[in-house]
Amino acid sequence: MTVQAGSTDQALRARARGVIPGGMYGHMSMEPMPPSYPQFMARGEGPRLWDVDGREYVDFMCGWGTIVLGRQHQAVDAAVASQLSNGDCLNGPGAVMVDLAELLVDTIPHADWSMFAKNGTDATTMSVTIARAATGRRRVLMANGAYHGAAPWCTPGPSGVLPEDRAFIAKFEYNDVDSLRAAVAEAGDDLAAIIVSPVRQDNRRDQELAQPEFAREVRDLATASGAVLILDDVRCGFRLDVGGSWEPLGVRPDLTAWSKAIANGHPLAAVTGIDSLAEAASSIYTTGSFWFAPTAMAAAITTITLLRDTDAMAHTHRMAELMREGLAEQARRHGLSIRQSGPAAMPLVLFDGDADLSVVAGWADECVKRGVYLHPWHNWFYTASHQPEDIAWALERTDEAFAATAARQAAS
Amino acid sequence: MTVQAGSTDQALRARARGVIPGGMYGHMSMEPMPPSYPQFMARGEGPRLWDVDGREYVDFMCGWGTIVLGRQHQAVDAAVASQLSNGDCLNGPGAVMVDLAELLVDTIPHADWSMFAKNGTDATTMSVTIARAATGRRRVLMANGAYHGAAPWCTPGPSGVLPEDRAFIAKFEYNDVDSLRAAVAEAGDDLAAIIVSPVRQDNRRDQELAQPEFAREVRDLATASGAVLILDDVRCGFRLDVGGSWEPLGVRPDLTAWSKAIANGHPLAAVTGIDSLAEAASSIYTTGSFWFAPTAMAAAITTITLLRDTDAMAHTHRMAELMREGLAEQARRHGLSIRQSGPAAMPLVLFDGDADLSVVAGWADECVKRGVYLHPWHNWFYTASHQPEDIAWALERTDEAFAATAARQAAS
Repeated sequence: MTVQAGSTDQALRARARGVIPGGMYGHMSMEPMPPSYPQFMARGEGPRLWDVDGREYVDFMCGWGTIVLGRQHQAVDAAVASQLSNGDCLNGPGAVMVDLAELLVDTIPHADWSMFAKNGTDATTMSVTIARAATGRRRVLMANGAYHGAAPWCTPGPSGVLPEDRAFIAKFEYNDVDSLRAAVAEAGDDLAAIIVSPVRQDNRRDQELAQPEFAREVRDLATASGAVLILDDVRCGFRLDVGGSWEPLGVRPDLTAWSKAIANGHPLAAVTGIDSLAEAASSIYTTGSFWFAPTAMAAAITTITLLRDTDAMAHTHRMAELMREGLAEQARRHGLSIRQSGPAAMPLVLFDGDADLSVVAGWADECVKRGVYLHPWHNWFYTASHQPEDIAWALERTDEAFAATAARQAAS
Repeated sequence: MTVQAGSTDQALRARARGVIPGGMYGHMSMEPMPPSYPQFMARGEGPRLWDVDGREYVDFMCGWGTIVLGRQHQAVDAAVASQLSNGDCLNGPGAVMVDLAELLVDTIPHADWSMFAKNGTDATTMSVTIARAATGRRRVLMANGAYHGAAPWCTPGPSGVLPEDRAFIAKFEYNDVDSLRAAVAEAGDDLAAIIVSPVRQDNRRDQELAQPEFAREVRDLATASGAVLILDDVRCGFRLDVGGSWEPLGVRPDLTAWSKAIANGHPLAAVTGIDSLAEAASSIYTTGSFWFAPTAMAAAITTITLLRDTDAMAHTHRMAELMREGLAEQARRHGLSIRQSGPAAMPLVLFDGDADLSVVAGWADECVKRGVYLHPWHNWFYTASHQPEDIAWALERTDEAFAATAARQAAS
């Protein structure tokens, strides 16, 4: 079942190496992944995926978080088809842009206005630019190890990036109030913004929910220093709370960056903000050829409305809990010690005593080989289309993967 | 026929002002435009557009250049529908990504590889990053007044941007070999790249084709100084020559940034480059949630194949010439002195003795009022769907607009 010589995937990889630098790039490069991961995918439906060699998977990556209701979702597809039949790139936005901005303002407590773009990185970069425009200050604080996009000011890869691109970016430790206070003090009266993710989701380490006192301190320090609090909800947004991921903590940002799940896989990003930042937001010059296209906005309206008005998020959470309980029971039974961290619906599974992540990589390889698509060191995702039978199907196979992992441990 | 109180457009604008900063933003804000321009559009088909109040237009902006074959194009729509039925955001790219990269490499003489993204700004920013990674140098030269996107390093609006964001960006005058030489000399051994548009398309002034000796000098100076020549073909790409817009001049860039017309309105951008830059390209970390989605890539394959294998571009050019000749004859007949600059299929029409552009603004207003959608100070676009009867329909109305302009001139 591994990706074999003679497979379509191998043939495509060979062709790709001829015409794409490194054969693939960015987060979708399977180069660093265990050997059974396919590089090229053919098709998806609900929570299921098929690769180019026809292998079927229950999917726990869900388009890296872009799919929240499930693939081939009837209502979203109908909205898209209807809009496409009128055209997409017109010479101005459609009425749907106003409808969507109003929906966000109605749904998200802190949001008094919205702007739209295409990439999560567009939204985080616009947020930082708005904060600098509003405050006339330069410094931006972010957590060590946090991912806020792939523009020069924030990309985790330093190649081609200049020190000047991040001259006024400083760091603090997530969930560490003292380090945050020190960073704020260091920035002094030049602090434009604190940008923070609602959950610590660094790759290759246990995910951490924000401690409520940390989140409150972020808010209080931003307010006290006249800086803008930017919540980077690109990854968690519309997965944990439809009003924003820190809404359950009662902590409201000044600006939020959204993307990924916002339109159930259609390309869209958004910035929402408070009234007092509207003037700064309208002062920056930012735009894109496809930013005003109505199709993705129509998809977003359907997606957000369903997430708000149905039990889609609660159902997703139940499926994630079912999987979590099953994995915990299986690991115990096989004598393996695992840690499931992060929100239930955006978990990461790591193994104790696995500093180099070789054990989890081996387990993930056994999973994907059997048709369970999950990630060994990036958080997973669920959709509302996952059903108990999908979880049961996946758990049958993760059980075998744990058995294989236990056998390998015993042999070593 | 103007946008009136009580119109749907006015009602939408009022709602938009409540939920979108400034009521709209970016290049699609109609705030600076003459009064008859609608802000919100409803529908498009071929070369025709309808606004939210049902007014019909022959379109000479074509989604600001994103539409090259025409809206509701049967073959492109079929490719899109077919791919959408398999899903869009899968956990990896589809085979179509390799097909598209191969098509670009086969079609574009300088291209040995391709990378894909969503915005033209993504493509220009990636190009600059690759150039810096490849050379280990910092300085980038661009023409005064040129538009290369809306990221902090290049946005024409300074609000929220720091001097550091553009610390190593220096300027030269387009089509001015001496100024280019001086800028290269000034950059010395820190010159990473020269980024240049194939045509000088600054807003509010006559467009200028690149003088062949200027284009050759750009190439020679880049080569001699070990810098990377980046052609920003985002706007002209797939409109002037399917192999790249400086191909007719025999000048081949090291990197080209593409977007807009590449997928006939579906959101896609690309960077193509030469072999010796592949390693640098694979060293940078750049990615986006929607960059690997196959639907826009399927649209691009159909679009580029048709542009390459049919007379679509030649037909478009003929339609543009027909319009240009008609406009010239009409202006003469009405005693008005106009200048039609730029490539025929990407023209700009300005009036002599109109320093503040009030005459062209008034004329454009009369045109759009009558159903001819064009732009008073940004270059226009055509599509392969424009037919002689569309041009004739438009010319009937531009003639009336010229008459109104001449009458206003006579009265003043």
